[in-house]
Amino acid sequence: MKVIIDAMGGDNAPQEIIRGAFLAKNELSADIVLVGDEALIRQSALAQNLSLEGIEIVHAPDTITMQDPPTAVRDKTESSMRVAFRLLREGKGDALVGAGNTGAMHVGSTLFVRRIRGVRRSAIGTILPMEKPLLLVDSGANISVTEEFLVQFAQMGSVYMKKIFGIEHPKVGLLNNGTEDKKGTELYVSTYQKLSACETLSFVGNIEGKDIPFGRCDVLVCDGFTGNIALKTLEGMGLFVMKKIKKMFQSSLSPKLAYPLLRGKIKALRREFDASEYGGAPFLGIAAPVIKAHGSSDAEAIKNAVRQAIHYHTTGIIDDLTALFANAPDKE
Amino acid sequence: MKVIIDAMGGDNAPQEIIRGAFLAKNELSADIVLVGDEALIRQSALAQNLSLEGIEIVHAPDTITMQDPPTAVRDKTESSMRVAFRLLREGKGDALVGAGNTGAMHVGSTLFVRRIRGVRRSAIGTILPMEKPLLLVDSGANISVTEEFLVQFAQMGSVYMKKIFGIEHPKVGLLNNGTEDKKGTELYVSTYQKLSACETLSFVGNIEGKDIPFGRCDVLVCDGFTGNIALKTLEGMGLFVMKKIKKMFQSSLSPKLAYPLLRGKIKALRREFDASEYGGAPFLGIAAPVIKAHGSSDAEAIKNAVRQAIHYHTTGIIDDLTALFANAPDKE
Repeated sequence: MKVIIDAMGGDNAPQEIIRGAFLAKNELSADIVLVGDEALIRQSALAQNLSLEGIEIVHAPDTITMQDPPTAVRDKTESSMRVAFRLLREGKGDALVGAGNTGAMHVGSTLFVRRIRGVRRSAIGTILPMEKPLLLVDSGANISVTEEFLVQFAQMGSVYMKKIFGIEHPKVGLLNNGTEDKKGTELYVSTYQKLSACETLSFVGNIEGKDIPFGRCDVLVCDGFTGNIALKTLEGMGLFVMKKIKKMFQSSLSPKLAYPLLRGKIKALRREFDASEYGGAPFLGIAAPVIKAHGSSDAEAIKNAVRQAIHYHTTGIIDDLTALFANAPDKE
Repeated sequence: MKVIIDAMGGDNAPQEIIRGAFLAKNELSADIVLVGDEALIRQSALAQNLSLEGIEIVHAPDTITMQDPPTAVRDKTESSMRVAFRLLREGKGDALVGAGNTGAMHVGSTLFVRRIRGVRRSAIGTILPMEKPLLLVDSGANISVTEEFLVQFAQMGSVYMKKIFGIEHPKVGLLNNGTEDKKGTELYVSTYQKLSACETLSFVGNIEGKDIPFGRCDVLVCDGFTGNIALKTLEGMGLFVMKKIKKMFQSSLSPKLAYPLLRGKIKALRREFDASEYGGAPFLGIAAPVIKAHGSSDAEAIKNAVRQAIHYHTTGIIDDLTALFANAPDKE
């Protein structure tokens, strides 16, 4: 299977992306297509002492930045992201991995790869490394949603957790500001009703922020604005507490003595909170695997996103989603 | 100064509330009025071996539960919360502290105490114990807001941080799903513009969830739905990481050896993340101090909320807000 990688997307592009591609090729035996400024790619590989042998390079002179609007993927026709989507559409690869502008990747997926028939909006599904793995969907693609979109997010998330984690009947929760069924905005109140009425879902009700880490559900549904804030708040708080712990060890003599004993364990814990361990996040509902890696991805994270792309492809999630929505009205 | 306490509100009512009232009276020299089922209050005090001498008790036979709708404060006329608001309105106390139903306290404040003239909506301002103290406003009172409400939240929050923490020009941030000025829903995009244009505010732009702990601003503004989710996500993640740390210490021999050395420090750290240390959260914009204590408040948290009520009263925040909004249009 062949994975297309946008070499110019993300905070650490191109060096970490290129090294990630190298790791993916060698450790996962994946065929890789790197898309971006060819001279820069070769130069960066050389500087890192990495052989690009066996990795295909497709030149694209332009780049989409984090400041560009989502529509840049349409307007910057020679950007690495746009060229990567073109290759995917033309069948010159089976999946796409990118760490760049999320909004642009969302627009690109929809415009150039298209949604599965019947899917109203694609959504980003991010696995949170909590007490048990939890899929947050939408974690940032759709700022404004309808109750119908949210129900589809729940359905797509359930298929994902079944296929990737083997959970037969994934529990679905709705992220809300209280557990009672009348909580939240009008949209959330009516979505609660629709999710309750959906017989193919195992809906467990509203989930509050404080319960996110504690395994109450397998799929947590919300709009992309709320999802992005929850996701990044978890990330920030995890980092903050770990920093405090480190400071604690350094603040007096006896903990200093204890630190060497614990250093390894603390590192392992930090890695546990590091979403990169689970790889990237798929755009659920798109007709080909498009995986969004974290903007701050390092080489390891890119490799894991490629692994995720391979899983997504081989488990047949897209076939299942195609069957699920075959009879859905394809209206707007 | 006299503080009215709803003895029946919160997960640990009435026992912890009564003990908190006892602590507040003895440690803070506050005059206390306890409102609730008199027989239950006396019985609980007796069981805890607490003297109620010098504490006024006002009987109210009914109780508002967490499941009641916000309008219960209007309909349950003999509930402890409603009677507490009546006493505050009649001037039989200077401030009100309660750990009960947030929505009902919000409605009660507005109906029975009223907003300061010119204030469109009151909001809950919660201090987050981060790298430096951060006021999150609104942390849960207003699920739906307008840009005008959000600008007022920023103004009220700035007055609060100036008066309580002595920050001359508090930095104001807008909680959003990215830092760029076009991020978020339409409401957030236009609120960004309005906050930028407001010359009396020190607006520092959009703040992402991952930056909440790291001191980028003193006042963080958002709607109450988003604020509640951010607040509780911080709480849940803090708890989750601390649990992981504890487990880490217990999972192998060498860390076990280190644990006794660190136990005290870890307890102190947990306390640092415990919002009760900062006391309760005021309803900003209400014409008298109404302080919401966390639903899970213990006696110490109630005492701290009483301290907060006293500060709120004595620093003259309400006078400042009254002056600030004196010329605001009082329209709806």
